[in-house]
Amino acid sequence: MLWDYEQPVTIRFGCGRVTEIADVAESHGWENGLIVSSEHFVRDGTTDRLIEASNGRLTAAFSDFSPNPDVAEVDDCAAVIRARGHGFVVAMGGGSAMDLAKAAASIALTDDSIADYHGTGKAMPVDHLPLIAVPTTAGTGSEVTCVAVLTNRKLGRKAPIVSSGFFPSVAIVDPELTVSVPPKVTASCGMDVLSQAIEGYWSKGHQPICDACAVHAAGLVFDYLPRAVADGSDLQAREKMCEASLIAGLAFTLPKTTSSHACSFPLTNIHGIPHGEACGLTLDWFVRVNKNAQSGRVQHFARTLGFADADAMADAIHDLKTRIGMRTGLADLHLNDGQIADLVRISRHPNLYNNPVDVTDGMLEDMYRHLAAIA
Amino acid sequence: MLWDYEQPVTIRFGCGRVTEIADVAESHGWENGLIVSSEHFVRDGTTDRLIEASNGRLTAAFSDFSPNPDVAEVDDCAAVIRARGHGFVVAMGGGSAMDLAKAAASIALTDDSIADYHGTGKAMPVDHLPLIAVPTTAGTGSEVTCVAVLTNRKLGRKAPIVSSGFFPSVAIVDPELTVSVPPKVTASCGMDVLSQAIEGYWSKGHQPICDACAVHAAGLVFDYLPRAVADGSDLQAREKMCEASLIAGLAFTLPKTTSSHACSFPLTNIHGIPHGEACGLTLDWFVRVNKNAQSGRVQHFARTLGFADADAMADAIHDLKTRIGMRTGLADLHLNDGQIADLVRISRHPNLYNNPVDVTDGMLEDMYRHLAAIA
Repeated sequence: MLWDYEQPVTIRFGCGRVTEIADVAESHGWENGLIVSSEHFVRDGTTDRLIEASNGRLTAAFSDFSPNPDVAEVDDCAAVIRARGHGFVVAMGGGSAMDLAKAAASIALTDDSIADYHGTGKAMPVDHLPLIAVPTTAGTGSEVTCVAVLTNRKLGRKAPIVSSGFFPSVAIVDPELTVSVPPKVTASCGMDVLSQAIEGYWSKGHQPICDACAVHAAGLVFDYLPRAVADGSDLQAREKMCEASLIAGLAFTLPKTTSSHACSFPLTNIHGIPHGEACGLTLDWFVRVNKNAQSGRVQHFARTLGFADADAMADAIHDLKTRIGMRTGLADLHLNDGQIADLVRISRHPNLYNNPVDVTDGMLEDMYRHLAAIA
Repeated sequence: MLWDYEQPVTIRFGCGRVTEIADVAESHGWENGLIVSSEHFVRDGTTDRLIEASNGRLTAAFSDFSPNPDVAEVDDCAAVIRARGHGFVVAMGGGSAMDLAKAAASIALTDDSIADYHGTGKAMPVDHLPLIAVPTTAGTGSEVTCVAVLTNRKLGRKAPIVSSGFFPSVAIVDPELTVSVPPKVTASCGMDVLSQAIEGYWSKGHQPICDACAVHAAGLVFDYLPRAVADGSDLQAREKMCEASLIAGLAFTLPKTTSSHACSFPLTNIHGIPHGEACGLTLDWFVRVNKNAQSGRVQHFARTLGFADADAMADAIHDLKTRIGMRTGLADLHLNDGQIADLVRISRHPNLYNNPVDVTDGMLEDMYRHLAAIA
């Protein structure tokens, strides 16, 4: 078996460590930093506090972007970076802030528009401004991945860009930043973590270091997600979910995700189901589809986590969803045949081809009809 | 819990990939490389073949060093690098070639002697020539670690130097290079891998990513080491042991090793027991010592690997040693009281203080008397 591995992100993990932004910048000699963060953290004073505590290393904040950042917003951020001569970027937030900041920190060193690279196959420039990633949800793992998902509203295109220049230089993971995340969002983000770990493991691109990370991350989700959802102030559960999210990021960034992520895209884009909840919706189904693939690797995964077999792990995923208030079916949407056909068609996303078992349209239709019939 | 992580080594793993040295050098623009390798690989023509296949990227070989490389040999290698203006270094071999090459690739950019940094506490310079590490044994994990063990014969000192500049830029792990390793060496190296994984896990410096790697690596050793020892041409077993060695390297390089490594030093230096065999000799003993430390983490480790509990894992380590011809006692050495006292005294190495349970002289004496009484 041939495999490659790279993981250039230096990690600082632990409660209170968001205050180390200045220390990181000083130790690298980075100056005149821009903090990219959602409007929410500007309004509640967080970005101002971080700028004040940065010993002059952070000089401005940028928050003019939407939850699914548009290529025009990336270009605006890059223009700000160029105009003000920023020397590094801090991305604080969920996936959106990181996606935008990764792209802007690369494109700012060119005169290009990110649109030139979005869905065009053109390789991103490798050079980029140093980026410090500070996640505020336990979900995306984006702080250790080399992918940014962007939207081009003009062209009606939402697609990831992958570039080794998108790896942050440093990830600061401070579980205290996630304490205020509401239960529904915590639950959905947690299901994204579990999907990333399990899909990274069974992806056709699987490899040993990512396997080890996948087992570790999935085990934490089963143990700690219900606690983090039930009591957001349970700091141990928050810490373990941040650990799970980070390590699931390591688990999937190289192998890539597969079937549940492929199916999540129409469920989110057409029916508005949050990303992680949409991934989790089909995860136990695909555990059963894939259970005997790859000479029993999925059975081994389940047994390593303490389950009797892969079917028992699928049952546990179903139970977990019920327990944390995530949907297990689509009956409330009253899907008609045309809508089911659309789901089948749009699930044929490139990620589907990373699944270890070939997923036919018939299999997708069976799955969506099953889900459509149950609450 | 606060923890940091860095793993800057890019990995290329798989049979036949040693031929990719030229590709790695070309993709980075590295020229005029020096291959550092033991005399053995010069004599059998391997280094010449690699130089010929390198499209001019490798220009010379260096093999003037001993199995426990001396600081003077590092200085000699650095002098060669300076004189010939080498732009990168390839270290091919077991621990010795890597230890020497790591140190020489750093010191060559200065006018210093490595002796200035060896056991003196002086921080190594961060700048270093790019290093490609190509292991030929499944044992040290040195291809992904930032440590080099050197000897100063003049001062009678053997000590590690740790420097983030010692991380190789690229590790090329080609299991075919390990096929000719004889059974005894395979067995000893494999016990080193198991010790690194288990000690990295229970070290006071343990942390989650390394934990995940430790579990993965230890599981592979139990499954594949007996096969690799029984039939060196079993390429699947060789591949899995290379994977275990690499991932155990990831597991211990940040947390550091503990009690079994501390005790291995006098067993090797006084009694000539090979390093890995010496580590393995006390490993099951320390599993029992540590089994209830850290709120049951060691029990969890054992159960994750499929053992009933930590005692069952200790039994399995003992059985493994018997099965692969590693010693389980010291009776043949006919140790007297003075020799046992020396072992106790010299086991008080800094690594001993990373052990999760405080190890007293009384505990060490009990252990050595027990080992001295059995074959």
